[in-house]
Amino acid sequence: MTYRVTVRDHMMVAHSLPGEVFGPAQRLHGATYVVDATFRATDVDADGIVVDIGRATEELKAVLADLTYRNLDDHDELAGVVTTTEVLARLVADRLAERAHAGRLGRPAEGLDGIEVTLRESHVAWASYERRL
Amino acid sequence: MTYRVTVRDHMMVAHSLPGEVFGPAQRLHGATYVVDATFRATDVDADGIVVDIGRATEELKAVLADLTYRNLDDHDELAGVVTTTEVLARLVADRLAERAHAGRLGRPAEGLDGIEVTLRESHVAWASYERRL
Amino acid sequence: MTYRVTVRDHMMVAHSLPGEVFGPAQRLHGATYVVDATFRATDVDADGIVVDIGRATEELKAVLADLTYRNLDDHDELAGVVTTTEVLARLVADRLAERAHAGRLGRPAEGLDGIEVTLRESHVAWASYERRL
Amino acid sequence: MTYRVTVRDHMMVAHSLPGEVFGPAQRLHGATYVVDATFRATDVDADGIVVDIGRATEELKAVLADLTYRNLDDHDELAGVVTTTEVLARLVADRLAERAHAGRLGRPAEGLDGIEVTLRESHVAWASYERRL
Amino acid sequence: MTYRVTVRDHMMVAHSLPGEVFGPAQRLHGATYVVDATFRATDVDADGIVVDIGRATEELKAVLADLTYRNLDDHDELAGVVTTTEVLARLVADRLAERAHAGRLGRPAEGLDGIEVTLRESHVAWASYERRL
Amino acid sequence: MTYRVTVRDHMMVAHSLPGEVFGPAQRLHGATYVVDATFRATDVDADGIVVDIGRATEELKAVLADLTYRNLDDHDELAGVVTTTEVLARLVADRLAERAHAGRLGRPAEGLDGIEVTLRESHVAWASYERRL
Repeated sequence: MTYRVTVRDHMMVAHSLPGEVFGPAQRLHGATYVVDATFRATDVDADGIVVDIGRATEELKAVLADLTYRNLDDHDELAGVVTTTEVLARLVADRLAERAHAGRLGRPAEGLDGIEVTLRESHVAWASYERRL
Repeated sequence: MTYRVTVRDHMMVAHSLPGEVFGPAQRLHGATYVVDATFRATDVDADGIVVDIGRATEELKAVLADLTYRNLDDHDELAGVVTTTEVLARLVADRLAERAHAGRLGRPAEGLDGIEVTLRESHVAWASYERRL
Repeated sequence: MTYRVTVRDHMMVAHSLPGEVFGPAQRLHGATYVVDATFRATDVDADGIVVDIGRATEELKAVLADLTYRNLDDHDELAGVVTTTEVLARLVADRLAERAHAGRLGRPAEGLDGIEVTLRESHVAWASYERRL
Repeated sequence: MTYRVTVRDHMMVAHSLPGEVFGPAQRLHGATYVVDATFRATDVDADGIVVDIGRATEELKAVLADLTYRNLDDHDELAGVVTTTEVLARLVADRLAERAHAGRLGRPAEGLDGIEVTLRESHVAWASYERRL
Repeated sequence: MTYRVTVRDHMMVAHSLPGEVFGPAQRLHGATYVVDATFRATDVDADGIVVDIGRATEELKAVLADLTYRNLDDHDELAGVVTTTEVLARLVADRLAERAHAGRLGRPAEGLDGIEVTLRESHVAWASYERRL
Repeated sequence: MTYRVTVRDHMMVAHSLPGEVFGPAQRLHGATYVVDATFRATDVDADGIVVDIGRATEELKAVLADLTYRNLDDHDELAGVVTTTEVLARLVADRLAERAHAGRLGRPAEGLDGIEVTLRESHVAWASYERRL
């Protein structure tokens, strides 16, 4: 038995992807990432929820606030990081996990089993990262 | 190896959610839930299907018929139940499982491994429940 | 030549629809309306925009705040109003028009030609109302 | 009587938007624009079509090829242009119109009445530009 | 002032498209058309609706029932017709118009101004036909 | 920890489904399948990716090229195969797996854990097949 709750938001960033494999994406360009954050639990809590959708939405917004309307190539904490969709999905998931462990989702992180974050970069491509909590 | 088949329908309900965590949703309000029911199997049957999409659609419609166009706060079988999206996803999944075990999906329930039900409450939030059969 | 800008939000309401034509929707039930508000202009302003997407989003949220998480049957300003999707689309459009005329969209309403509001009540049905400004 | 045909593609760009009204979007950031190009005609041609969907798709791709995977702030032909979603929608529409007049859509431009281009910048905001041919 | 109501259904057909312009689509192939039927009126009726969504859904289903799960190349009434998406959109719109004039939408056709039918053939291409009533 | 990358394309086929369970779909009809191919890995490679989205898109297009704009009932390699959505999902997944093992995705297949292919046949039904690599 698994319950999941997902909330959606988005971010709009510039970046470039160094490496021949990226072809034209080696140039400075940009992306809107529509971001889905999924929280997974074996059971709901006493209120009948996995997490409070309102708080999950706020925490996701807070995580994205540090990234959106930025050129990721100039982001101090991303120096040397190749910001592919996969890597950014992990970054968002890891930061949400920190917030879960800090108790900011309302429910203690022990009650949650995992987080999955999906970044949709267009109508024809997306990537996700799934981890334990 | 896993095969999955999903059918979609919807229901439109009123309800209120008792508990401080729900904020304004403590008031009587409502929701359209777009409902995706997914059936999972290790293999397809002799006809090359997980379940008959037509029958799956009918059974999902039958399950939702008991809930849609209702105030769930006044639903006899839901007395005392906090009808969060998560809880309703489980309710729909459990009722579909009963119907699978009663043979109403055509394929014997033994041929199916599990059911997952997702309720989309808006373009930015959804919840699901996954169980074995 | 016509430019249009659209922003999306949603509201979750309970209501009942009196009148035989509504069948089961005569009972108290509910809906999520995903709301698209479109602003139309013959030309963009000096900043190259129809309206500021940020302000349009805030004004739409303000209009919906009065309706969401409510039982519309008990809403003082809607006494005697049959709150069909069409009627609610007009209500939202008219309230946005008032805000446009009050200068709350940034751009003077004289620069805008019209507003269209679409309410999506499910994945298979929606309604809209289009008016001049 | 009006017929319309629409084809979809996308582009991924970096840019900045000078002007106080743009708030954080004054910084260098980026966007995926999912682009819908609609061709409008009073009647279909002898083959029963408004335009050949295959050629419309190719021409849209050709127009977007000049913009995608670029920092629009450094694009020679866009010097001094504020590249809002509205302005980019017009740019794409005007370039498609040139191609229509050059006969590259197969059907002579005289057979077409107009073009509308919509740029979706996220799941909650989009803009369009509609013009005659 | 314009009100619009849209209902969605789908049909699954085989067909071939004679004519060099169609390239590989000259071969027998097929399509799912997700069909949106929009009814337009200057005002709502006494019940606050453009048309009864339930009846509009039934009439659309009835129109599509004659086409779905068929090879359109063998359809008696389509002999000699090139069944492009545009032509099929008109066919569905015209048949809905007949039903509107026959009073099957509940509201007299005189109360309605027009019908638009959109056929989505994939996630990247669609066509529509709009007519008066 | 699991990373996933998905790319989307589509195919348009005619076919018939022999067997009483298929009802009207026993007749020759057709479908657009919007196809999502998901590649799964425990970790990203040195470039920070699961697979190159560009190459994944090309390989998916190559696999679908053999099926699209065809009557699958006459496809030599599908003689005797009941081409349900489930079976076609497996066919596409297996062919992508062959290409992965042939090194055509850029990344060696050993770096990938699995493939999942989803075929959406309408807005209300889809099927998928998931396998190891």
